[in-house]
Amino acid sequence: MSLYVMKFGGSSVGTTERMQRVAQRIVDKKLQGHQVVVVVSAMGDTTDDLIDKSSELNAQPPAREMDMLLTTGEQISTALLAMAIHKLGHAARSFTGWQAGIETEAVHGKARITNIEPKRLLSALGRGEIVIVAGFQGMTEDGEITTLGRGGSDTTAVALAAAVQADACEIYTDVDGVYSTDPRVVKCARKLDVISYDEMLELAHLGAAVLHPRAVEYAKHHRVRLVVRSSFTQNEGTLVREEPAMEQGVVVSGIAFDKNVARISILGVEDVPGVLANVFGALADAGIDVDIIVQSGVQNGKADFSFTVSSADRERALAVIANVREAVPYRESTYEEGLVKVSIVGAGMVSNPGVAAKMFDVMSKAGVSIKMVSTSEIKCSCVIASEPLQEVVRALHTAYGLDTAESAFVGGPQERR
Amino acid sequence: MSLYVMKFGGSSVGTTERMQRVAQRIVDKKLQGHQVVVVVSAMGDTTDDLIDKSSELNAQPPAREMDMLLTTGEQISTALLAMAIHKLGHAARSFTGWQAGIETEAVHGKARITNIEPKRLLSALGRGEIVIVAGFQGMTEDGEITTLGRGGSDTTAVALAAAVQADACEIYTDVDGVYSTDPRVVKCARKLDVISYDEMLELAHLGAAVLHPRAVEYAKHHRVRLVVRSSFTQNEGTLVREEPAMEQGVVVSGIAFDKNVARISILGVEDVPGVLANVFGALADAGIDVDIIVQSGVQNGKADFSFTVSSADRERALAVIANVREAVPYRESTYEEGLVKVSIVGAGMVSNPGVAAKMFDVMSKAGVSIKMVSTSEIKCSCVIASEPLQEVVRALHTAYGLDTAESAFVGGPQERR
Repeated sequence: MSLYVMKFGGSSVGTTERMQRVAQRIVDKKLQGHQVVVVVSAMGDTTDDLIDKSSELNAQPPAREMDMLLTTGEQISTALLAMAIHKLGHAARSFTGWQAGIETEAVHGKARITNIEPKRLLSALGRGEIVIVAGFQGMTEDGEITTLGRGGSDTTAVALAAAVQADACEIYTDVDGVYSTDPRVVKCARKLDVISYDEMLELAHLGAAVLHPRAVEYAKHHRVRLVVRSSFTQNEGTLVREEPAMEQGVVVSGIAFDKNVARISILGVEDVPGVLANVFGALADAGIDVDIIVQSGVQNGKADFSFTVSSADRERALAVIANVREAVPYRESTYEEGLVKVSIVGAGMVSNPGVAAKMFDVMSKAGVSIKMVSTSEIKCSCVIASEPLQEVVRALHTAYGLDTAESAFVGGPQERR
Repeated sequence: MSLYVMKFGGSSVGTTERMQRVAQRIVDKKLQGHQVVVVVSAMGDTTDDLIDKSSELNAQPPAREMDMLLTTGEQISTALLAMAIHKLGHAARSFTGWQAGIETEAVHGKARITNIEPKRLLSALGRGEIVIVAGFQGMTEDGEITTLGRGGSDTTAVALAAAVQADACEIYTDVDGVYSTDPRVVKCARKLDVISYDEMLELAHLGAAVLHPRAVEYAKHHRVRLVVRSSFTQNEGTLVREEPAMEQGVVVSGIAFDKNVARISILGVEDVPGVLANVFGALADAGIDVDIIVQSGVQNGKADFSFTVSSADRERALAVIANVREAVPYRESTYEEGLVKVSIVGAGMVSNPGVAAKMFDVMSKAGVSIKMVSTSEIKCSCVIASEPLQEVVRALHTAYGLDTAESAFVGGPQERR
């Protein structure tokens, strides 16, 4: 008998029919002789409906009340799923975040889990019940209801798997697993059987929206065996674990890309200490995620630097830059829109020189000019114009030996809560 | 500064526009210098929508999961109402039943409140916040979420009023107050300014669906000053309190009627001890509410008796009767459908002989045959055919001196959760 955590996202339980299918899937696992803890997100549109109602009443609702509102979505899913499982003749018991013993920081909208007291869950498992926990939520020491923010249900699943010492945490999604690149762009994209936490982290950060990076970090830290697999097929999925059995000659595991990148440049900045801290501190305070930062050399006591943000944040980022001009004198700021970031990711890169050079070579042959470069031990990212993205990704996929004949991608948008 | 509990039902917060109106009403009370605890039900159709979803998955869902499901409705209302109040520039804080310290029996679907620990509410009030509590719900000692059943939000409001020692508990509804009879039937029905708990209890039980009897009982027991008033007007409403200033010559305060009554008769029952206990025990086990019970004299060791149930329960009641035939031998069972129960209610009846006789006289003059009679110290009920109900109620209203020229009834269906 093993203990599994199974996580189903909002689109997997978007209708009562889908919920019945999920219930059957859970019961099948139970019938194989395993103990099961299920984590579930809010049904399909529930969250959007609640947000619509709230914005009719208050365009800037207090974060505490938003958490009170949105956590009902997952509570509804858990209760309905428990009912569907009972209908199949098996005992199931739903738990809100606080009932499941999930304790968080006293922060609303994006709290981090501080501790899990799984006593009630373990005693339900001991009684042979299937345990169903509302994802995305927890409770503070003071009994306030909190949410974990984006990717929260993935994080709930991984954290529970660590707390109950599950044999594996299975993330059910609408794709077959983690791919070598987006199968919608490169037809011969390959499903990966195994990937390391670090590779997964890079891929997750780089827009391969299968698993939220926070959840991967948590899994890495607590050594949780993670599996990404499809809600709709019986395929094996992708195992995320510490040290993958590296395939012969595979240096790059996957190619990720992130559309809607904007580059902002600040030119002629006074080169005094604290300049970068000032600028990026102000951007962080405004809740703007900055990705790649590049600073050129200093000339005549003036520096130029550039950074990328998502296109959606570009306008706000420029406003922040304008606001700090007094503290950080500069000549001018410019921006460029409609860029993409393409990245190659692979644990093998660290011991294989020339991997990045090959990337630049492919870019050059495709006639693409590279605007920014950023590297880490296991990835190399280039910011380029959005055209011809498909050609570039395909060429990279071939160049790094990732092409295969088949593709099992089932398509559809990813769910992210 | 006084402390008020204000309760708003589901139709009062049925849309975001109505919720804004309720928010303004609450803020007005606050601006008058008072402390406010609000109890709110689920928005209009929310509960029905949730029940629909659950029945698609399981026609007989576990009661525990039903409570997990339905309590989200009130939680949504409280969060949205808090947001609407914030929008008006006032601090408000929502609380689920368990956060409000409402402890109940370990029963699902119809738990009774066992205790309230209002510490968190009182400290929020102390900070000048408007407190908003989800009606209809509580928590058991073991941390299980429960619901209070029909009339639950009224009961929450009254119980909270007792726990925080509120100066009054105001039940906002879609009528102006408690009427001498249903203004949709008798145009000159009179709004009562004051009524006693006992009279209100009889009226509540008898189908004047303004206040749930459990809430009235609780108010009587804890001496909570109750006010029934309109969400839509500024009228004074009806005060329910211990000893009303009886109006000169008013013996009967109101006339209630209950449609959809079915009478079931069991004829030729062996008159052995335990017969009634057997029959009515079985009906209670089946969750069927029995109202009037009449037993005729015993002849040749056989008795006949009749009782009333609501029409909706008639078929199930007959099935229960058939099932107990082995334990309780009888000759035959019969039933009559489409009856109504008309009742006169008044604290003055106890000291005024002839009140019931006048009722029978009115019935007789209207050519109505009385099928069953039941009396208590402050009421007299007759079960009659449903036609001519209106004439009978009007004639009684006149006979007991209840007619006045004006009627301030605003109409619309009652909300009952």
